[in-house]
Amino acid sequence: MTGKTADIRSDIAYSTPDRIVVRGKDLPNEILGKMNLGDFAYLQLTSKTATPEQSRMFNALLITLVEHGITPSAIAARMTYAGAPESLQAAVAAGLCGLGTVFVGTTEGSAKMLYEAFDGAGDHPDLQALAAKTVADFRARKQAIPGLGHPVHKPIDPRTPRLFQLAEENGMAGKYVKLVQLIQAEAERATGKVLPINATGALGAICCEFGFPWKIVRGFGVMARAIGLVGHILEESQSPMSYQLWHEIEDRASAHLRG
Amino acid sequence: MTGKTADIRSDIAYSTPDRIVVRGKDLPNEILGKMNLGDFAYLQLTSKTATPEQSRMFNALLITLVEHGITPSAIAARMTYAGAPESLQAAVAAGLCGLGTVFVGTTEGSAKMLYEAFDGAGDHPDLQALAAKTVADFRARKQAIPGLGHPVHKPIDPRTPRLFQLAEENGMAGKYVKLVQLIQAEAERATGKVLPINATGALGAICCEFGFPWKIVRGFGVMARAIGLVGHILEESQSPMSYQLWHEIEDRASAHLRG
Amino acid sequence: MTGKTADIRSDIAYSTPDRIVVRGKDLPNEILGKMNLGDFAYLQLTSKTATPEQSRMFNALLITLVEHGITPSAIAARMTYAGAPESLQAAVAAGLCGLGTVFVGTTEGSAKMLYEAFDGAGDHPDLQALAAKTVADFRARKQAIPGLGHPVHKPIDPRTPRLFQLAEENGMAGKYVKLVQLIQAEAERATGKVLPINATGALGAICCEFGFPWKIVRGFGVMARAIGLVGHILEESQSPMSYQLWHEIEDRASAHLRG
Amino acid sequence: MTGKTADIRSDIAYSTPDRIVVRGKDLPNEILGKMNLGDFAYLQLTSKTATPEQSRMFNALLITLVEHGITPSAIAARMTYAGAPESLQAAVAAGLCGLGTVFVGTTEGSAKMLYEAFDGAGDHPDLQALAAKTVADFRARKQAIPGLGHPVHKPIDPRTPRLFQLAEENGMAGKYVKLVQLIQAEAERATGKVLPINATGALGAICCEFGFPWKIVRGFGVMARAIGLVGHILEESQSPMSYQLWHEIEDRASAHLRG
Repeated sequence: MTGKTADIRSDIAYSTPDRIVVRGKDLPNEILGKMNLGDFAYLQLTSKTATPEQSRMFNALLITLVEHGITPSAIAARMTYAGAPESLQAAVAAGLCGLGTVFVGTTEGSAKMLYEAFDGAGDHPDLQALAAKTVADFRARKQAIPGLGHPVHKPIDPRTPRLFQLAEENGMAGKYVKLVQLIQAEAERATGKVLPINATGALGAICCEFGFPWKIVRGFGVMARAIGLVGHILEESQSPMSYQLWHEIEDRASAHLRG
Repeated sequence: MTGKTADIRSDIAYSTPDRIVVRGKDLPNEILGKMNLGDFAYLQLTSKTATPEQSRMFNALLITLVEHGITPSAIAARMTYAGAPESLQAAVAAGLCGLGTVFVGTTEGSAKMLYEAFDGAGDHPDLQALAAKTVADFRARKQAIPGLGHPVHKPIDPRTPRLFQLAEENGMAGKYVKLVQLIQAEAERATGKVLPINATGALGAICCEFGFPWKIVRGFGVMARAIGLVGHILEESQSPMSYQLWHEIEDRASAHLRG
Repeated sequence: MTGKTADIRSDIAYSTPDRIVVRGKDLPNEILGKMNLGDFAYLQLTSKTATPEQSRMFNALLITLVEHGITPSAIAARMTYAGAPESLQAAVAAGLCGLGTVFVGTTEGSAKMLYEAFDGAGDHPDLQALAAKTVADFRARKQAIPGLGHPVHKPIDPRTPRLFQLAEENGMAGKYVKLVQLIQAEAERATGKVLPINATGALGAICCEFGFPWKIVRGFGVMARAIGLVGHILEESQSPMSYQLWHEIEDRASAHLRG
Repeated sequence: MTGKTADIRSDIAYSTPDRIVVRGKDLPNEILGKMNLGDFAYLQLTSKTATPEQSRMFNALLITLVEHGITPSAIAARMTYAGAPESLQAAVAAGLCGLGTVFVGTTEGSAKMLYEAFDGAGDHPDLQALAAKTVADFRARKQAIPGLGHPVHKPIDPRTPRLFQLAEENGMAGKYVKLVQLIQAEAERATGKVLPINATGALGAICCEFGFPWKIVRGFGVMARAIGLVGHILEESQSPMSYQLWHEIEDRASAHLRG
C-alpha cells in the first residue's frame, strides 16, 4: 500500500496530542465559546466562516427542519427506544433512516430542480420562461413538482413567507428564490390547484442561494432532525407512548385473524 | 381505542393549517431568525429559553462533539454512502449507530457516575471523600473510570481546560465539575498513571451542572456528530476514499486465504 | 503501512476472478443447491458443516425469531419505509435497531446467565444448587431473570415445549436446558409467580448447547428478524398502515396542545 | 378512532396466549422442526409453502447474497461494533444501510428492467427484439445496464452459470432468464466490451421467474446479508481489525494537515 499513501485524504480536521484543529481553526481556542452550533455546522461543511447574514439564514434553515411533531420518523425512533433503551444512538439512527424522498428529503428535489432549470440557460435567463419550461417538463413526466403543496399547511405554509423574508433581509433572495416563486405561480395556473411553496421548497431555493451542492441538501434535514429526535426520545423516556401504541396497533391489525 | 384517547401525549410541538408551534413558541415568528441552532436544541429538550450563559455553554458543549477527524463512525458513514449514495440519511444513520459505550457515549458514563456519587450524600457532602469512594468503587469492580484518559490527547486533553474555563465564566463550575477534578486527582494518585480528564469527562460534568438526566446525555453526542457526518459525506461525495480503502482492506485481510 | 500487512485478517471468505470461497467451500459448486439457508448461516458462523441434528435444531432456532406480528420493530420499519420507500434496506435497518435488551436481545441475557452459572462450578456441578444460587443472585440484585415470563404467552409459552422437544430429539437437551428448567422452577417457588420459560429463555439455553459465545447470541435474533421485516415491508408496500397510524397518533398526542 | 378500526390490518401473523400463527400455520407445531429457514422466508413473504423446486432455488438465491468477503458493508458493521459492542443489532443495521443502488440493490434494477421489458409486449414477444430495445434504451439514457459487468469476476461471474443451472433443473429457466442472456449478448455486441451477467443480474431474472414484485427484490439481499454481517461481527469480536484500520486511515488521511 506504500505507493498509494498520498491518495486518500480528508481536509476536515486533525489532532495532535495537544491540538484539535477543524477547518484550520483551533477547536478549543478559536471555536469553543466563540461560535454557535449553526455557524460551526457552516464551517464544517463549507470550510468558511459564516458572515452575520449567512449565520442568521443558515441557523434559520436548520432550525426549520428540527421538529414537526409526531412524525413517522419520531414514531420509529420512539418504538426503537422501547426495545433498546441502552442504545439511544440506534433510536436516533432509526428515526433518521426514513428521511428520504417522501419526507424532508424533498428539499433535495427542490434544489436539484432549481439548479437544473438554470443549466445552459446563459447569464441572463428569462426566469418566467424557465418556470414555464420546468412546470411543463414535470407535468409531461407526470411527476409532482418538489417543494409545492402540503397536506396540512394551506393555502400557505407559514414557514415559507418568514423564510423568504429572512432571505430578503440577509441578501439571499436571488434568482433561485425568484424562480421557485414563479414555478409556484405557473404550477397553480397550469393545474388549477392551490399549491403553496412548502418549507422544503423554500429551503431548497435558499440552499441554492448558498451554493450548496444539491446532493448534500438532504443532509441539512438529517442533521437538524437528529436534534429533534433526541427531544422525542427524552420525552419517551419520561412519558412513554410506544408500549400502548404497540398493543393497540397489534390488536387492531390482527383482529381479523384471531376471529 | 376511544376510551384511551387521553393517555398518549407529546408536549413538544403541534401544527394547524396556519401555525407550527414548538415548546409554546410560534416557529416562524418567534424562533426563525431570532435564535441559533444550539439555543433551539436547548429549547427542544428543556422547554426553556437558554440564558446567555446557558447559550454559550450549551453551544460549546455540542460543538465539542461534532467533529474529531476520521473516526470509526466517519468511516462507517463513508462506506455506507459508497453503496447507497441515494440514501444520504442512511449513511448518517450508519455512522451514528456506533456512538455507544466506547466512543462518544462515554459522556453518559461520566454523568451517571457523578450523579450517583451525590446520591444519598446529603446537602453538604465532603467532595474529597466522594471522589475517593468513587475511585475505590470503580477499582474494586475493575472498571475504567469514565471520562478519564485518552489515547492521543495527553498529558491533557486540550478541550478540557477550555470547557472548564467556559463553565467558570458562565456560572457552571459547580459541584460536579469540582468532583470530576477530584476524581481525576484521586485516580492518578491511586493508579500512578497519567489520566487526563478527557472531553467526554468534562462534558459529562457540565451536563450534570445543567441538570440533564444522564440517560439523555449520549444524545448530545449523537445530534452533534450527525452534523459532523454530513460534512464527511459531502467530502466523500467530492473526494472519495471508500473504494480505495475497501480494495486495500479486502486484499490485506484475505491474502492468506488466496495463498 | 507495509510493515503491518500481516496483522489484519479475515478467515471467512475470498474471491478470485473465477472463484468465490466461503469457509473453505466453493460457493457456486459446493454450496448453492446443496445447502439450505439455515445451514449456510451455521457454516458462516462456525466454519463447520451442520450435522443433520444441528441443522434441524439451528433452523428451528432461527425460524422461532423471524416473526412475531406487529411488534415495535415492525412498526419502526413500516414508518421508515413510508418516508423513504426507495431505501428498503434502511427500513429493515431501522427495524433492527430496536432489538436490544428489552426485545429479542434477551436471548443474550439468558445465554450469559447460563454460561456464568457454570463458571467455576467444576465438572460435576449440582444443577439444583446452581439454579438456587442463580435465582438468589438475581433477586439480590433486584434484576429480572432473563428468559422467564411473558406478557401474553402464559402459563406457558407455546414455543418452549416444542423447542425443548426438538432439543431432546436432536441430542441437545444437555446441562444448559436442564439448568434453565431448574431455574424456572426455583424462580416460581421463590417468587410465587407464574414464570414460564419464554422463547428467548429456551433459545438461550439451546445456544449454550451449541457452544455459541453469548456475545453473538443476539445476532441470531437480528438475522432472523431481518427476514421478518422484509415481509412486513412487502405488506406495507401493498397495503399500508403507516400513514393512517401517523395521522391518528399525531392527532391524539397533540390534542391537548391544539386546545 | 373507533370508526376506523377495520382499516389497518396485517395478514402475516397473530398470537394468543397459547398460540403463535404465521401465515395460517401454527409456528411451534407445523413449522418448527419441519421447515428450513429459506422455506420459512418464502412462506413469510408469499404466504405459500415452497415446492421442493422452489425451495432449492430460493435457498440458493438467498445464500448467494449472504457473504462476499470484506465489503464496504462489512467494514461499516465492524467499525460500528468497535464503538458500540453492546449494540450488536446496531452494527448489523449500519452494515445493511449501504445495500443500495451500488451494491446488492442492483438485483432490484435487474428485476425492474426485465419486468418493464415485457410490459405491453403481448403474449408472444420476440425476445431478441426486447433485448435490442432494452439495450438501446439504456444506451440512449447513458445508463449502465443493471446486472451486467463485474470488477473482479470476469470474463464470467462464477455464480451465474451455477444459478442458471439450478434454474434449469428446477423449472425456473423461463422467459426472464432467457431475456437477460439475450440482453447480455446484445450489450456485448453493441459496446464491444466483456459484460458478464453478474450474480445480481442472474438473481434479478430468477426473482422475476418467481414473480416477486421488483420493489421487494432488494430485500432478499438485505435479509441474506444480515446473516453474513453477524458472521463478520463474531469474527471482529474475536479478532478485531477495526482499531488498527482506524488509526492507519486517520494517519494517512490527515498527514498533509499535520505537516
